[in-house]
Amino acid sequence: MIYVGKKIAVIGGDMRQISASNHLKKKTFNVQLYGFDKEYLNKDANMAESFEQAAFGAKVLLLGLPAADDTNINTSCWSGKLSINTFVSSLEKDVLVIGGSLSAALKAALDEKGIKYADYLQREEFAVLNAVPTAEGAIEIAMKELPVTLSGLKCLVVGYGRIGKVLAKSLKGLGADVSCSARKCSDLAWISVSGFNPVQTSRISEEIHEYPLIFNTVPHMMFDKNMLGLVRGDALIIDLASKPGGIDFDRAKELGIKVIWALSLPGKVAPDSAGKIIADTVINIINEI
Amino acid sequence: MIYVGKKIAVIGGDMRQISASNHLKKKTFNVQLYGFDKEYLNKDANMAESFEQAAFGAKVLLLGLPAADDTNINTSCWSGKLSINTFVSSLEKDVLVIGGSLSAALKAALDEKGIKYADYLQREEFAVLNAVPTAEGAIEIAMKELPVTLSGLKCLVVGYGRIGKVLAKSLKGLGADVSCSARKCSDLAWISVSGFNPVQTSRISEEIHEYPLIFNTVPHMMFDKNMLGLVRGDALIIDLASKPGGIDFDRAKELGIKVIWALSLPGKVAPDSAGKIIADTVINIINEI
Amino acid sequence: MIYVGKKIAVIGGDMRQISASNHLKKKTFNVQLYGFDKEYLNKDANMAESFEQAAFGAKVLLLGLPAADDTNINTSCWSGKLSINTFVSSLEKDVLVIGGSLSAALKAALDEKGIKYADYLQREEFAVLNAVPTAEGAIEIAMKELPVTLSGLKCLVVGYGRIGKVLAKSLKGLGADVSCSARKCSDLAWISVSGFNPVQTSRISEEIHEYPLIFNTVPHMMFDKNMLGLVRGDALIIDLASKPGGIDFDRAKELGIKVIWALSLPGKVAPDSAGKIIADTVINIINEI
Amino acid sequence: MIYVGKKIAVIGGDMRQISASNHLKKKTFNVQLYGFDKEYLNKDANMAESFEQAAFGAKVLLLGLPAADDTNINTSCWSGKLSINTFVSSLEKDVLVIGGSLSAALKAALDEKGIKYADYLQREEFAVLNAVPTAEGAIEIAMKELPVTLSGLKCLVVGYGRIGKVLAKSLKGLGADVSCSARKCSDLAWISVSGFNPVQTSRISEEIHEYPLIFNTVPHMMFDKNMLGLVRGDALIIDLASKPGGIDFDRAKELGIKVIWALSLPGKVAPDSAGKIIADTVINIINEI
Repeated sequence: MIYVGKKIAVIGGDMRQISASNHLKKKTFNVQLYGFDKEYLNKDANMAESFEQAAFGAKVLLLGLPAADDTNINTSCWSGKLSINTFVSSLEKDVLVIGGSLSAALKAALDEKGIKYADYLQREEFAVLNAVPTAEGAIEIAMKELPVTLSGLKCLVVGYGRIGKVLAKSLKGLGADVSCSARKCSDLAWISVSGFNPVQTSRISEEIHEYPLIFNTVPHMMFDKNMLGLVRGDALIIDLASKPGGIDFDRAKELGIKVIWALSLPGKVAPDSAGKIIADTVINIINEI
Repeated sequence: MIYVGKKIAVIGGDMRQISASNHLKKKTFNVQLYGFDKEYLNKDANMAESFEQAAFGAKVLLLGLPAADDTNINTSCWSGKLSINTFVSSLEKDVLVIGGSLSAALKAALDEKGIKYADYLQREEFAVLNAVPTAEGAIEIAMKELPVTLSGLKCLVVGYGRIGKVLAKSLKGLGADVSCSARKCSDLAWISVSGFNPVQTSRISEEIHEYPLIFNTVPHMMFDKNMLGLVRGDALIIDLASKPGGIDFDRAKELGIKVIWALSLPGKVAPDSAGKIIADTVINIINEI
Repeated sequence: MIYVGKKIAVIGGDMRQISASNHLKKKTFNVQLYGFDKEYLNKDANMAESFEQAAFGAKVLLLGLPAADDTNINTSCWSGKLSINTFVSSLEKDVLVIGGSLSAALKAALDEKGIKYADYLQREEFAVLNAVPTAEGAIEIAMKELPVTLSGLKCLVVGYGRIGKVLAKSLKGLGADVSCSARKCSDLAWISVSGFNPVQTSRISEEIHEYPLIFNTVPHMMFDKNMLGLVRGDALIIDLASKPGGIDFDRAKELGIKVIWALSLPGKVAPDSAGKIIADTVINIINEI
Repeated sequence: MIYVGKKIAVIGGDMRQISASNHLKKKTFNVQLYGFDKEYLNKDANMAESFEQAAFGAKVLLLGLPAADDTNINTSCWSGKLSINTFVSSLEKDVLVIGGSLSAALKAALDEKGIKYADYLQREEFAVLNAVPTAEGAIEIAMKELPVTLSGLKCLVVGYGRIGKVLAKSLKGLGADVSCSARKCSDLAWISVSGFNPVQTSRISEEIHEYPLIFNTVPHMMFDKNMLGLVRGDALIIDLASKPGGIDFDRAKELGIKVIWALSLPGKVAPDSAGKIIADTVINIINEI
């Protein structure tokens, strides 16, 4: 779809959606917003007076992250409410609804009316790009908590997925001495080729006591009682793994090890960048139609 | 398999296998060589007097790259010959034969006798690790050919696979201004996140005239007549793609564009490192048994 | 002076001195502390019961930063007081007093008794090493204040001295797009060679509007009314220049430009690292005697 | 001096001057060449038919590196000759002569006529910028000579001046494990802060046996008989120090240690970049008038 000049309605969500709307405007979309209280918006924002006005002529409707719950569209920066029913019933059939994590109720309502939809949370490039604000957020936490510089510090990044890769690179860019753990030989080869110290997952326990700073990115119980017992007492562990996380928090508390579970960092530490990432992903989705 | 002190027989191949044998020795293997003329070996090399002696007691037999042709084991640094038949008939049944690209004839002979075998060329980590000498070889060529420094030079790396990733990183490490092309949105996101300029494959033609140095890593005809017509006359193209390569060489010659097709760089520019990579991969294979 | 096993008395100062004492201990000094309340010390700290005990047999006495005011030794983590007179009168003549910024009164008292002294604040390597925690502190502030990631952000570092150099490198390590300004052609050459965008000091005003993040390291009025009038309204300026700073704060406030004057960052953001830097410098001083 | 559109005459020298003339043209100088055989020039080069024509109206005359010997202007790419006498006698008094290393004879002749002159070889930024092609030339040699990759290789850079700094950075950019030696504490601090391993000059001998690759940048006899006796037999030493160099070549030969004395690399490995550096320095000189 050629989107130059096309109308996109940005409906609800949080500050990221407002940032996304600004970036979409720069990319020559005709943007109209709905579902935000005025205090959150710039003076020159094109705010619709009703949902019908916002939807009128819009080829694309962009929703927040998450897009909706069982009954309502997510409008967390708005004192009002917009139900899934109202939303769907006002749409033309040939529009495209894009949101982050669409609820079953929303998808059912859209399917019923035959309206196409896409989920930017399921796009690989969205996850890749979000690794950057996640890594910076984790680094900001480490800087704030530790009485030492990251430069020269021995750090372990557990897991070499998207976040692990980007975090390791940023830490090295600050002069840290970075080790990364992985299970697969090919991942360990990449770790080595990228200039990090490779650590076989099964051998973490042998050297975990050397690290005053540990980042976990693996959503399994990596740091159970046994492993925590081997961690330095003055170590800081930052858990970036989504639920259920990878650390036995109770046991860490008993041992006096400081653990910070840092979830959803992009929206918290860099909402403008997170919004730009949404906008870029939305444009990719539209380009592929 | 626990390999400490176990015997490994290194049978033929080229300088890489001799380097591999040295690295395997450091890792506490009991290494014996066969199938090399003495001039290629150190004085203290443990050279067998016959293949039977080399094979005697060996748990692993390591062959070259390629391991064999239709009839003979590859012994390119030896004035003698070792046939597949002789090789296989002297082996105990419980040994492991490891080689790089095993020929159909060799595999058939091993299968017939029920001997296990593995191919290090098919290991992902082998390919990842070899991207480093490939990238350095490509950079050495560029340095030799160009009258300008790579520092500050606009370079395009076509394709963001293993070689593309490592090459782009090394070029950036030398201060080059690096663009990488890819087709998938997620690869373009990685390119951007890694600090390179992303270029959609379909849009290479729009900016190809800006690059005095181009590396191709894609084994499709990327630089056909049309694309070559857009390349600068003073550009250098280094083709790292395996057969059939990605460049219309005849057309490039007509246009006076310098193209270098650089294949099998690891063995040529850094045989010792290439041998170490073989040794590391062999150890991974053995560890998994 | 060979210091292995020699006694060093660490007298007063702040957390950096306690960290320094730990590092000196690791370097095999016999360390005794005085002038700290117990709550600041580890249980195993060797704390003297009196200044006389601390000074007894000590070849080196290490003071804080600053070392003293007009009458008293700096003991900011202690409820007690130690006058310069008491301090000097208890010293043997052949000791070495090392402090950070020695007051005129302290120097006069030491001169009178013929006691040698050295100032670690005047050592070039001390300033170089402290540029690292300063840069990290500045980056932590930027991360905290800005709604965007540093990765990809256009940053200007005004001044290419010690802090400018280290800060620019760290920012680039995080993926920022870094420009540095300097006056001299040779500094601009270094900026360019180091991979940053060079900006002539006299031409900052021409492009200052492009930068959402500006670090000032020059202790002159770089950002006067005129210059501030050209800065983006949403820019963040972090002033790292020692007094009198380089920014017209009143004017910035009028214009709504956020300015943070960040002084003495090493002791604030990374006291342990700052203490290690003191210890390393003290050892250099002792080695040269 | 505002140089836009001004005439500059490029008189003799080598390929670097031809490259410099191209860059000066891009910077809007009116460039005319003299003292080159046609085979060295592009078809569209503005070549004067006589020196008088070249000098006519020229505000600046740019000479090669070196600019002249005792009697003649350096015209190493020309079958003809231009004497200092002829050169100086044809000049207007208000011109500026710029060359690299002006001979005493040339300076005397210019002084006599009261003509101003400047030496780009004595400019600090010239030396800084030339460290880049020098470093790349040294790396190209190392890549060609060694059977291993620089990635992962332990390298020692002796001396942390301009070339040492740039070379260390480039080596690290390729993934090498880089140590640098220096005498002064502040240089050692910079080495450490820049991410290299610091080695006190006086302690090189203790660890020199660990390095398969050594670059010398210090123009003193660093590698005398004693030191060479400690170097690995398979090490490569690349000497980048100007005369008299820093290595006992005879002794190295006896020991079978490979030493390459690599002088004047910029003009050899990257004449176009070297010419651009001359042009940039010339513009700085002109801007300061």
